[in-house]
Amino acid sequence: MTHTTTPTASFTERMAGLDEAAVRRLDRDHVFHSWSAQALIDPLPIARAEGSYFWDHAGKRYLDFSSQLVNINIGYQHPKVVAAIQEQAARLATIQPAFANDARSEAARLIAEVAPEGLDRVFFTNGGAEANENAIRMARLHTGRHKVLATYRSYHGATAGSITLTGDPRRWPSEPGQPGIVHFWGPYTYRSAFHSETEEQERERALAHLRDTLMVEGPHTVAAIILETVVGTNGILVPPEGYLQGVRAICDEFGIMLIADEVMAGFGRCGEWFAVDHWGVVPDLITFAKGVNSGYVPLGGVIISDPIADTFQERAYPGGLTYSGHPLACASAVASITAFHEEGIVDHARRLGADVIGPRLREIAAKHASVGDVRGLGVFWAVELVTNRETRDPLVPFNAAGDAAKPMAAFAAACKERGLWPFTHFNRTHVVPPCTTTAEEAEEGLAILDEALDVADTFTH
Amino acid sequence: MTHTTTPTASFTERMAGLDEAAVRRLDRDHVFHSWSAQALIDPLPIARAEGSYFWDHAGKRYLDFSSQLVNINIGYQHPKVVAAIQEQAARLATIQPAFANDARSEAARLIAEVAPEGLDRVFFTNGGAEANENAIRMARLHTGRHKVLATYRSYHGATAGSITLTGDPRRWPSEPGQPGIVHFWGPYTYRSAFHSETEEQERERALAHLRDTLMVEGPHTVAAIILETVVGTNGILVPPEGYLQGVRAICDEFGIMLIADEVMAGFGRCGEWFAVDHWGVVPDLITFAKGVNSGYVPLGGVIISDPIADTFQERAYPGGLTYSGHPLACASAVASITAFHEEGIVDHARRLGADVIGPRLREIAAKHASVGDVRGLGVFWAVELVTNRETRDPLVPFNAAGDAAKPMAAFAAACKERGLWPFTHFNRTHVVPPCTTTAEEAEEGLAILDEALDVADTFTH
Repeated sequence: MTHTTTPTASFTERMAGLDEAAVRRLDRDHVFHSWSAQALIDPLPIARAEGSYFWDHAGKRYLDFSSQLVNINIGYQHPKVVAAIQEQAARLATIQPAFANDARSEAARLIAEVAPEGLDRVFFTNGGAEANENAIRMARLHTGRHKVLATYRSYHGATAGSITLTGDPRRWPSEPGQPGIVHFWGPYTYRSAFHSETEEQERERALAHLRDTLMVEGPHTVAAIILETVVGTNGILVPPEGYLQGVRAICDEFGIMLIADEVMAGFGRCGEWFAVDHWGVVPDLITFAKGVNSGYVPLGGVIISDPIADTFQERAYPGGLTYSGHPLACASAVASITAFHEEGIVDHARRLGADVIGPRLREIAAKHASVGDVRGLGVFWAVELVTNRETRDPLVPFNAAGDAAKPMAAFAAACKERGLWPFTHFNRTHVVPPCTTTAEEAEEGLAILDEALDVADTFTH
Repeated sequence: MTHTTTPTASFTERMAGLDEAAVRRLDRDHVFHSWSAQALIDPLPIARAEGSYFWDHAGKRYLDFSSQLVNINIGYQHPKVVAAIQEQAARLATIQPAFANDARSEAARLIAEVAPEGLDRVFFTNGGAEANENAIRMARLHTGRHKVLATYRSYHGATAGSITLTGDPRRWPSEPGQPGIVHFWGPYTYRSAFHSETEEQERERALAHLRDTLMVEGPHTVAAIILETVVGTNGILVPPEGYLQGVRAICDEFGIMLIADEVMAGFGRCGEWFAVDHWGVVPDLITFAKGVNSGYVPLGGVIISDPIADTFQERAYPGGLTYSGHPLACASAVASITAFHEEGIVDHARRLGADVIGPRLREIAAKHASVGDVRGLGVFWAVELVTNRETRDPLVPFNAAGDAAKPMAAFAAACKERGLWPFTHFNRTHVVPPCTTTAEEAEEGLAILDEALDVADTFTH
């Protein structure tokens, strides 16, 4: 069959026939939403977006302090990335993984180029969950060991392996999951599992806890330790100086692979290409998604150290997916990484955190009784809300829903009313705007946050 | 940061700077390929594609009898789908799953419209593996039961849950997988697990085997039975008339959810919108990917029956992913499904199978000593190769690799030399061209297949 039918209307024209009411009605009738009770949500239709802002159909503008799901690192509708998608769509939308393809080759080169030394090969997936699934498969086959250690207060994705790695309540309904995954506690000085009072204590005690956990699990049975370099949704937990170096040393001592999940922390989010660069630590495997191309096209992957890649030189790697190395997705990554270089986006993100977001959040914290802690780096910050600064009782309980979550919902509503779209999780709001957000835009958003925190203050005592 | 930097070169111009040698070198240096021993492959760089053909960098043209990984249902570079991707990229590349979006709403409507009656809601994923992961999660939570039955000789994806469902050797290196998955035997008359001699016997015995398996597993412990409506990579196993209706009746009797994996069989492949339509069977969940948009952008999903959707009206569904309902992917699905309607592609695929591929393959089978069986429907056909028609010994052993697989490699090479790209698996070649392949193109490819089978014949005795 040749494609002889003349298109009767452009896609854009057809979409113009759908007004906001139609978008809502079709959504409610036919779209089943992630992580939601379908009858209890009212998804806001979004009409357009540009740079650091998006707009609803009524024309209301929101400054985005969420980067959607912490993925729009380059901002919305970056013209170079949009152009690359359009051009690649015209060249060759897709070709299967067994072939070679120019966009795929170039994307892999650019990713390897910014990865730590010795991580030279990229296995592409559609997103972060599949990246983590494949990383633990690689570590298990490379070491010949089965067990994987992961941290509590982590999120690694929602497929059976990744959700089992996950150390937050999203795992519970999917248990029992993949066998052989063991959870341990990572550092979190503000709510220390080890009763630490300083960052240094937290580092030492968290490393001792990991060593003890390995002792009782049997380090020779452990293939990998996986952790978010900086924990994302579960609190922007920046590890104390020396912790990651210590984990690396423990891994080296016992022949354990270190997997850095940088799905959220990578590609500029922490003011570095990869968050591990902040501490000069080289993992054996890095998983990525989100910021690699800001999710303009679904894309994720695993960056693989040479020794692990060598394991699969003569022995088949037993994993794959139809869209591994998808040309359209890879083209968007090529354009995005190139724009990061040309526009100095990683440096900009680092300075925005150090010069604007961090200092301003500390000022805000000093003014508000509800702010218990502020922490972060780059464009990756958490503001932890409490009912009482002395007791550190969280503003809402762990995993709160419904009425129990109302104080956070009231705070979020106050932000949205004022044109700021916040990222909230449990008792925290995260300040996670695009890496391309200007200082002026950040100030604008932080001023709104400041006002909205008055609402949170009303729940303190 | 505003996007002030003028692009110095278009993406197309940059890619033009990569010649074939560079594509190959960067691929070998940086791309880690699916399902492969990295040193033992030599991925062919593909330069362009259109309709039913693709070309390498030397300008050699291949007629595609593989649809890549059985996903290019609409053919390569369909102008309406390309245009929709380009237009949506300019409108809004991505927005997170908690919002509503016109392309997402319309894609869900169009999918629900062609799905069987009573399956009205769509949970979007990035591909088939995640679709199956979510389908079994939904079935488990809806029924409150844990066990899932899946068939041997099946493929469902490579994440921990999906690979455990899988009934082929790709599962072995990832074991132990998700607990609670039990395999049973499906119908396959040519190599019957039940020593059947007719299709009718095979249907009755396969249903009795399923019933016996449920008896010994305890049907009240079983949440779901998942099967490929027509088994894909493991042999294009078309179930005997009455088998699927029988499985549906057994599921109804015991309150078990029937999950139809139509990642490969759906969206025109079997000459129907969904393969279940061929037998008038309505599953509780249908999983899809590939043909929904021919993989132009990664997309998959689960189509959900109303009772299962109702379970998650007031209770949160515990699954999700950053790119669920990705606008760019949904836009390509809207354009592709619309083109399917406008161009009569499903009917074309049905007729191509019934009028051209099936009859011609039966003629070819009569000529070649190596052809043991021919089976299929629509544009979904298998030619099973044997060393001897009486004994039915396969041309290469189950899961053959290296030297043992040489007869199949020789056959494939003979096709490629003549400009036909075949799909081979174990001792079979599948005839799975795009649904838009013309009768003339199909004849052209089948003539080459006919010639190449002379090579297979040399291994018979």
